[in-house]
Amino acid sequence: MLTLEQISTLVGGVIVGDPNTVITGVETIEGAREGDLTFAVNQKNTDKLANSQASAALVSPEIIDCPVASVQCENVQKAFTLIAEHLRPASPKTTIGVSDKATVSDSATVGKNVTVYPGAFIGDHCTIGDGTTIYPGACLLENCQIGCQVSIYPNAVLYENTQVGDRTNIHANAVIGAHGFGYDSGKDGHKLSAQLGHVEIGNDADIGACTTIDRGTFGSTRIGHGSKLDNQVMIGHNCQIGEHNLLCSQVGIAGSSQTGNFVVMAGQVGIGDHLAIGDRAILGAKSGVMHNLAGDQTYVGAPAILARDRFQIFAAEAKLPEMRKQFKRLVRQVDRLEDRLSSNDTAEAA
Amino acid sequence: MLTLEQISTLVGGVIVGDPNTVITGVETIEGAREGDLTFAVNQKNTDKLANSQASAALVSPEIIDCPVASVQCENVQKAFTLIAEHLRPASPKTTIGVSDKATVSDSATVGKNVTVYPGAFIGDHCTIGDGTTIYPGACLLENCQIGCQVSIYPNAVLYENTQVGDRTNIHANAVIGAHGFGYDSGKDGHKLSAQLGHVEIGNDADIGACTTIDRGTFGSTRIGHGSKLDNQVMIGHNCQIGEHNLLCSQVGIAGSSQTGNFVVMAGQVGIGDHLAIGDRAILGAKSGVMHNLAGDQTYVGAPAILARDRFQIFAAEAKLPEMRKQFKRLVRQVDRLEDRLSSNDTAEAA
Amino acid sequence: MLTLEQISTLVGGVIVGDPNTVITGVETIEGAREGDLTFAVNQKNTDKLANSQASAALVSPEIIDCPVASVQCENVQKAFTLIAEHLRPASPKTTIGVSDKATVSDSATVGKNVTVYPGAFIGDHCTIGDGTTIYPGACLLENCQIGCQVSIYPNAVLYENTQVGDRTNIHANAVIGAHGFGYDSGKDGHKLSAQLGHVEIGNDADIGACTTIDRGTFGSTRIGHGSKLDNQVMIGHNCQIGEHNLLCSQVGIAGSSQTGNFVVMAGQVGIGDHLAIGDRAILGAKSGVMHNLAGDQTYVGAPAILARDRFQIFAAEAKLPEMRKQFKRLVRQVDRLEDRLSSNDTAEAA
Repeated sequence: MLTLEQISTLVGGVIVGDPNTVITGVETIEGAREGDLTFAVNQKNTDKLANSQASAALVSPEIIDCPVASVQCENVQKAFTLIAEHLRPASPKTTIGVSDKATVSDSATVGKNVTVYPGAFIGDHCTIGDGTTIYPGACLLENCQIGCQVSIYPNAVLYENTQVGDRTNIHANAVIGAHGFGYDSGKDGHKLSAQLGHVEIGNDADIGACTTIDRGTFGSTRIGHGSKLDNQVMIGHNCQIGEHNLLCSQVGIAGSSQTGNFVVMAGQVGIGDHLAIGDRAILGAKSGVMHNLAGDQTYVGAPAILARDRFQIFAAEAKLPEMRKQFKRLVRQVDRLEDRLSSNDTAEAA
Repeated sequence: MLTLEQISTLVGGVIVGDPNTVITGVETIEGAREGDLTFAVNQKNTDKLANSQASAALVSPEIIDCPVASVQCENVQKAFTLIAEHLRPASPKTTIGVSDKATVSDSATVGKNVTVYPGAFIGDHCTIGDGTTIYPGACLLENCQIGCQVSIYPNAVLYENTQVGDRTNIHANAVIGAHGFGYDSGKDGHKLSAQLGHVEIGNDADIGACTTIDRGTFGSTRIGHGSKLDNQVMIGHNCQIGEHNLLCSQVGIAGSSQTGNFVVMAGQVGIGDHLAIGDRAILGAKSGVMHNLAGDQTYVGAPAILARDRFQIFAAEAKLPEMRKQFKRLVRQVDRLEDRLSSNDTAEAA
Repeated sequence: MLTLEQISTLVGGVIVGDPNTVITGVETIEGAREGDLTFAVNQKNTDKLANSQASAALVSPEIIDCPVASVQCENVQKAFTLIAEHLRPASPKTTIGVSDKATVSDSATVGKNVTVYPGAFIGDHCTIGDGTTIYPGACLLENCQIGCQVSIYPNAVLYENTQVGDRTNIHANAVIGAHGFGYDSGKDGHKLSAQLGHVEIGNDADIGACTTIDRGTFGSTRIGHGSKLDNQVMIGHNCQIGEHNLLCSQVGIAGSSQTGNFVVMAGQVGIGDHLAIGDRAILGAKSGVMHNLAGDQTYVGAPAILARDRFQIFAAEAKLPEMRKQFKRLVRQVDRLEDRLSSNDTAEAA
């Protein structure tokens, strides 16, 4: 429970309305009930507050005529998160220890304050760092090395020899270290290439649900420190992903490609194999990359080219059917001109 | 076992051949053996029956010269399903109760006639409605609220606070309620946004295998009643999917977008964030949506535009290389005309 | 441990340097330490060896001035795999038998030398062939028929009646046999079609992590012998995939389509429903297929057309904005010509 006055102090904002308004929860505009604080960053959302049961709102300074008591502050979302953390504190992570319904190899090394839920499987020679949580059904095959304060969510699978840094989250049903898709092909079919490598994930990385990262052929497939992969991302064998990348959902990167630092890829981007993407490159949704790309630029389309060039092509393309008609008219116009000129010439010659 | 006469009565059709033919099973044309009933909706498939071991077939009324005994009826597929249900009744869903090899929290509430298979995990404060089945390895973290007659298939994962309506199916390895892909980015990297929301799925929904639906930031990500999501669909945080949508495989919808009712998206469609798609809109396969789209229309392409406009562009595009050649010829023709005209002028002036 | 001389004998190569060099491990150039053998297939990588700690390298015959001891040989990768298998032999697959922490139905038939890990689930009437391994958390619902020497990796799910041939690998979190996405749609919503079929996978197939293959409506969805599916591939109900196909990551094939033998699809390809793709057809990344495609050809783009035609269109498209400008200039030029001609005519007439 907080009063509006306490809230304004916490977020450094200006109260408009009764400072004694009592707030017991946080909610979106649509879901708010009496006693809830909500938030609005633009006038349109503020207008919706008239029909909301919220008792108060955090709003941007430029908002006028807020229909409920409000606190005006600069970064509304950040402020709201702060209050939310006050009013809905995360249930303290109870360290339940290693469940006797989990399977933990005798040769595994488990740190302090580690939680292993029922149904989890930890194979031979694995190491689990302090404060790490292994959720139900998560499976670590032999010799995985897991850092401290890591969360491996339910039913995620780490194949043998996977390495994971500190404070990294691996979400449910992600698969790390499955076989790379490399074959020696002949008339009789396809023979799987060597699968002697592994996957190495840095510190502070997030790996989304149902994301797959294949092992290297001989060495490692690597995800750099601080890189965040959304759900259903696919990283091929031997790829080297730099630090602090943001790879949105359903991105696919083929084998042996590498990215610099702070690279951003929007949803459903595809990158060919053996390519290099420079630092801070940004790739628009559904881009298809067939060549190396320099950093510090934005690319769009398939094939991916500089965004400004691609948008010019999109614009020209949209007018293409009309241009075809105009072109046909022009051809006829020119033909008529030629006829006139020829008949003039003939007339003159006559 | 059914005679052809009994079958014709069940489906309301006309027998061509021996009404006493005995049918013991149902199969496709390719897989049928003696005693099996199969079906054919067009003449091409009917011709294949000559090489099939099927004893009889359900066929459309317009079929002529069916090589095996047949029953002609209007809706062949529907009729075949009906007979299939007679001859291959689904194994009665045995209520095996709560397996002692499952983990069910003492604080969970489990309804009547609930089946919980070995290896399933049901967390603190969860509620499971009557007649619901939780398959092996399925995992419900704390405070999930599940309706009646729900099926949660093997190894599906529901993060905390997920709500699921009645008669909804969540297929194997789907992940509901993982963290949203929202970050506060700076020079030092990316800080995960608040993850205080949850996912709410209505009644009679189907969620496909390996589909992922992220939780809301503060409020809910919502899937409306009767909406069907195919495999490997991705729904971002805070999305509001309307009722009776059909979202085909590998569709991805970015954060905070919403759809109306009866929206259809074909495979691999991508929708940007914070967009709205109107009721009954239809999106062709691989469409990429960057703007709000009005309902009751069909859209194609990336960027997605009205289907008829896109198909005109496709047609014009196909002729573009030829048009470039014609254009170059036209440029030369015009230049020659200009030269002729100029030399005429000069000649006249002379 | 091997000497360089022994290595050259094993791979049939030519030693450049000290034949007594002792090799104890294999590694990539970047990861190599003293005692390691590495490999380089081109001059650029060979140059990197100067900064590597590797003691020797396998190199292509055309490499000059290799900075470390080397063995020149024809197929470097193949040779390196051979030596890797000598020096890093796979841990012998220990047959641990059927874990008492697994759930195996009394009516299941389990062959010789089968391994079933803790947490695996094997339903009623399943059959498991000799030498097969079922990893932790893998789930086989009733009546699955699994061949010999098969690996079903952790948390993979096989719905009822799935058939799998010999020596096939099904990777982690793959889902085989979930419901097909077929509905009978009306004003009140969508009614699920019959789900009486199953999935049949041939011998020597690989099914990638998080790949989904839906069951047939009445008959089977089939994956031919030797076909390899990468991660996150989606195969719709009733599809018939031929032999020795290579389907890269995130490919999606809609219901009832079929492919010939040795078909190759690069990443993120989408195939519509009820289509046929001929033998040895190759589809470029992100292709979208709307029509049947003949075999022995390469296709690119959405809609997918012959590669050479598509690349011509890509080239023309790139010049489209410039062409629009030229076109406008040409229109003005022609108009001016017409004006001149008309004024000449008028002058003459005067």
